[in-house]
Amino acid sequence: MRLSNLFMPTLREVPAEAEIPSHQLMLRAALMRKLASGIYNYLPLGLRVLRKIEEIVREEMNREGAQEILCSALLPSELWKESGRWEVFGPEMFKLLDRNGREFCLGPTHEEIFTDIIRNEVKSYKDMPLNLYQIQTKYRDERRPRFGVMRCREFTMKDAYSFDTSWEGLDESFNKMYRAYCRIFDRCGLDYKAVEADTGAMGGTGSMEFMVKSDIGEAEVVYCSSCDYAANIEKAPTFEVKVEAKEELKELQKVETPNVRTIEELVSFFNTTPQKFAKTLIYKADDKVVAVMVRGDRDVNETKVINYLKCINLELADAETVRKATGADIGFAGPIGIKVDELLIDYEVKYIENMIIGANETAYHMINANYGRDFEGTVGDFRNIAIGDKCPKCGAEIKINRGIEVGHIFKLGTKYSQAMGATFVDDKGEEKPIIMGCYGIGINRTMAAVIEQNHDEKGIIWPLSIAPFHVIVVPVVMKDELQVKVAEEIYNKLNEMGVETLIDDRDERAGVKFNDADLIGIPIRITVGKKIKDGIVEFKLRNSSEVKEIKVEEVYDEVLKVFKERNVKIKSC
Amino acid sequence: MRLSNLFMPTLREVPAEAEIPSHQLMLRAALMRKLASGIYNYLPLGLRVLRKIEEIVREEMNREGAQEILCSALLPSELWKESGRWEVFGPEMFKLLDRNGREFCLGPTHEEIFTDIIRNEVKSYKDMPLNLYQIQTKYRDERRPRFGVMRCREFTMKDAYSFDTSWEGLDESFNKMYRAYCRIFDRCGLDYKAVEADTGAMGGTGSMEFMVKSDIGEAEVVYCSSCDYAANIEKAPTFEVKVEAKEELKELQKVETPNVRTIEELVSFFNTTPQKFAKTLIYKADDKVVAVMVRGDRDVNETKVINYLKCINLELADAETVRKATGADIGFAGPIGIKVDELLIDYEVKYIENMIIGANETAYHMINANYGRDFEGTVGDFRNIAIGDKCPKCGAEIKINRGIEVGHIFKLGTKYSQAMGATFVDDKGEEKPIIMGCYGIGINRTMAAVIEQNHDEKGIIWPLSIAPFHVIVVPVVMKDELQVKVAEEIYNKLNEMGVETLIDDRDERAGVKFNDADLIGIPIRITVGKKIKDGIVEFKLRNSSEVKEIKVEEVYDEVLKVFKERNVKIKSC
Repeated sequence: MRLSNLFMPTLREVPAEAEIPSHQLMLRAALMRKLASGIYNYLPLGLRVLRKIEEIVREEMNREGAQEILCSALLPSELWKESGRWEVFGPEMFKLLDRNGREFCLGPTHEEIFTDIIRNEVKSYKDMPLNLYQIQTKYRDERRPRFGVMRCREFTMKDAYSFDTSWEGLDESFNKMYRAYCRIFDRCGLDYKAVEADTGAMGGTGSMEFMVKSDIGEAEVVYCSSCDYAANIEKAPTFEVKVEAKEELKELQKVETPNVRTIEELVSFFNTTPQKFAKTLIYKADDKVVAVMVRGDRDVNETKVINYLKCINLELADAETVRKATGADIGFAGPIGIKVDELLIDYEVKYIENMIIGANETAYHMINANYGRDFEGTVGDFRNIAIGDKCPKCGAEIKINRGIEVGHIFKLGTKYSQAMGATFVDDKGEEKPIIMGCYGIGINRTMAAVIEQNHDEKGIIWPLSIAPFHVIVVPVVMKDELQVKVAEEIYNKLNEMGVETLIDDRDERAGVKFNDADLIGIPIRITVGKKIKDGIVEFKLRNSSEVKEIKVEEVYDEVLKVFKERNVKIKSC
Repeated sequence: MRLSNLFMPTLREVPAEAEIPSHQLMLRAALMRKLASGIYNYLPLGLRVLRKIEEIVREEMNREGAQEILCSALLPSELWKESGRWEVFGPEMFKLLDRNGREFCLGPTHEEIFTDIIRNEVKSYKDMPLNLYQIQTKYRDERRPRFGVMRCREFTMKDAYSFDTSWEGLDESFNKMYRAYCRIFDRCGLDYKAVEADTGAMGGTGSMEFMVKSDIGEAEVVYCSSCDYAANIEKAPTFEVKVEAKEELKELQKVETPNVRTIEELVSFFNTTPQKFAKTLIYKADDKVVAVMVRGDRDVNETKVINYLKCINLELADAETVRKATGADIGFAGPIGIKVDELLIDYEVKYIENMIIGANETAYHMINANYGRDFEGTVGDFRNIAIGDKCPKCGAEIKINRGIEVGHIFKLGTKYSQAMGATFVDDKGEEKPIIMGCYGIGINRTMAAVIEQNHDEKGIIWPLSIAPFHVIVVPVVMKDELQVKVAEEIYNKLNEMGVETLIDDRDERAGVKFNDADLIGIPIRITVGKKIKDGIVEFKLRNSSEVKEIKVEEVYDEVLKVFKERNVKIKSC
């Protein structure tokens, strides 16, 4: 492709709308443009990268025996009502009516649809194991779309669903997908970690997320400094650590604390540390009201609370609910005399001596409260793990990093097959629910994650495997006939070899050409300049500052060497 | 791929929902399944065909210098309001609100979106010519989805938009697309015709449809028995044919015609021919009421009426409007004394002597009416061309066939660029509107059209170029070790050669295997049966009844010969 023809409106300035590097670079390098909040159009370079990631995903899915299909994005409500998820999704689901008033949604995921296909077509244990996938457009009406394609409202997802006759079969299907995902993210050049994730009721290793290490990631990953343990923060457990009593139990006392509500304000008011406080948060859990106590410096882990309560929706209570439960404004809740359906107390709170708590009275706190003497409740693990906690597997120090979730594999079990009647007849003639797994990869988010991990101040540094083009040939002076002639020869020959090659045949200054080449991140740059008189061109890799001078005739072997070193195959030949 | 693994739920029975061969076969051959009215999920075989058609389209578009991008399907209303089409589409457009109450639609087409991209990025004549396309999902809420993917509500379309600085440039872009389309439909193995289509105000050769000849087609194609003229029925003009007066003008007379309304009833009542009648149809044209007169045996051509009136919406008037215009029930309208904004009279009506017309009085007609003496109006071409009319180009006999529209190329001119302010600065520094063309191909409909033209009573007969697999290897008896061994060898070697090969390794009777192979339409079948003892296998083409016995070692050359004969390249190697 010639840059004089290529639709590549690069930007010099960083667009105001973009906060993070990948978003800025996807706009600047002309990969995409915003159409509406969280909705993007992909330009030629961006689409080429998307397609290459899709192709890697396809190859590795097929290698594990998965079969590609393609479902509609416009889905009738009936299937979602069968599974009970029509209401669960809430405002995140785009809903619409057709001209006859029938309800549809734009699919945020496709468990129901695949289950429906299978229950109509699969009858016997002989038809399984089966793994079907699609690479398809998903829709989620995010409350706050941001960070470009990291959190957007329309995106391409590879979603796969496995169907097995036994739990061992599910394990095998799950492991196949684990292997496929590792190969996919390896080939995309990502530095990632597969971490345990929450599975709701199921536990075990039934859910893993593939997390790309990145400071801009929205997820927190917990991992061990010593062993191979890794989990997301929702999942990583904490345990009861018994603490010997050191202080004398003092007398419970009510203290006026006007305009003092937050932990910071309280720490300052009482001149103590956050570890001396227990905060009490009031939640609505489905139709119940629940209070959760954690130490002043800790965060409630809502996933753990949901799993304990087995509820579907959990949200912080509004002021009115708080007032009903505590008789006070928000900020003064405490365990003593609180009117809730259940009081959950994190392990640590049990051992805080003479702690400070809310008094359930506006503008008052209690001091010298002690678990057991002054209040009781359900004690358990209800907080996020934090630096200082021990590895759940080996007891060594844990670390916490931010990460971008690019993939998720999940053992669904019989949740959907039971709800929707997807059964099979086993080899003994018995009818049983099909055992399912689901496996997702965010294609666009993978692209953005690659950029987060592969860029510098000049632009993107594409891995060869998913670069929009492999090579860019730059004739320095377009008026120099010899430069242009040789550049054209290299350009044509590389393309004939199946190396996807650009030529910057624009009548621009060399600086402009180099800047664009760096910005769009083409892995190999071949510059044809003055020294072509002596048969010499410059060979430069985008991920290195070294500029090699080589003979024109060596160009092709040098290019092939890079493909070989990076283990990338040339497609056509 | 092994049939024992392939998700291919073929059906023996013809599904009741399917009326036409392609729809029946797409269900029976497990290409797709219906999810909701006009909405389908594609199974592995169907998706493979879709992808191959897409790839042919992509190659031929790229060959003409078009560049692929990908736009959102979820489109904000603002752009459609700018162009004025938010209301025009009516109930055919799926509309929805996001969680913040902003209006969106599911794109039925993308002129507005491409125009928006271009007005933001293209400033100078140097940036053009430019042709951008996408292969993307479109949504149209059809009133009556039918015939499977022929008229469905979600479908894949290749839509391209060209941007030029001059009308000559547009002609060139248009011609490039014409050439690309011919190659695409040739490669898909279609028997098609490019025909002139209506362009609204523009005229000339500004619009062509690619029509696949088929009895189940919803369009009518007019073509000449002698020259190369071809047009769709909306477009093909008729001309004034002066007829010498033969009869004496008789006296206009009102006749009671109780319960006689249709032309058939009138013909019988008056014991004459339909040619003796002129029917008067009342339309609502935007905010006007218009009457159109054509001969009793003719059909009003609404496109011609719309073009004459330059209106946006034209629909038959309701009973109340008819009553206001005629003072009578539906069925008795006539030109004399009718209260309409305009009376359009087709050329032929001018020459009907002593004709019969409605009396504008319920249960009455007039006889012996004559144009000029009894009524006048705007005379012109307002009817469909019909057998017996002459070729507009050479005057020879015309023929009319039904056809399936698979592609459409159209000179848009400046309609969208003017409405949306997409301008460029020309080489003299003047600002001008960009000149556009648009070019569509229905991918799914192309697949269905191929099946309509390529099937027999046993199933589909795929052209090699878009077959889901090229070869199927059938070991006849799975318990015969030699048969299985040789079949596996052939299967593996062909796949290694890049020939997409199936093996029917199911433990089924030979009849079942042959029936499925015929139903799914694999171009080449290699049967490994008893004669393998002598090194002989059967080689059969799906589009021929001949079964050749060849030596095992000749299989590969025979397969390659078929690729060569049919001019299809093997992709990987």
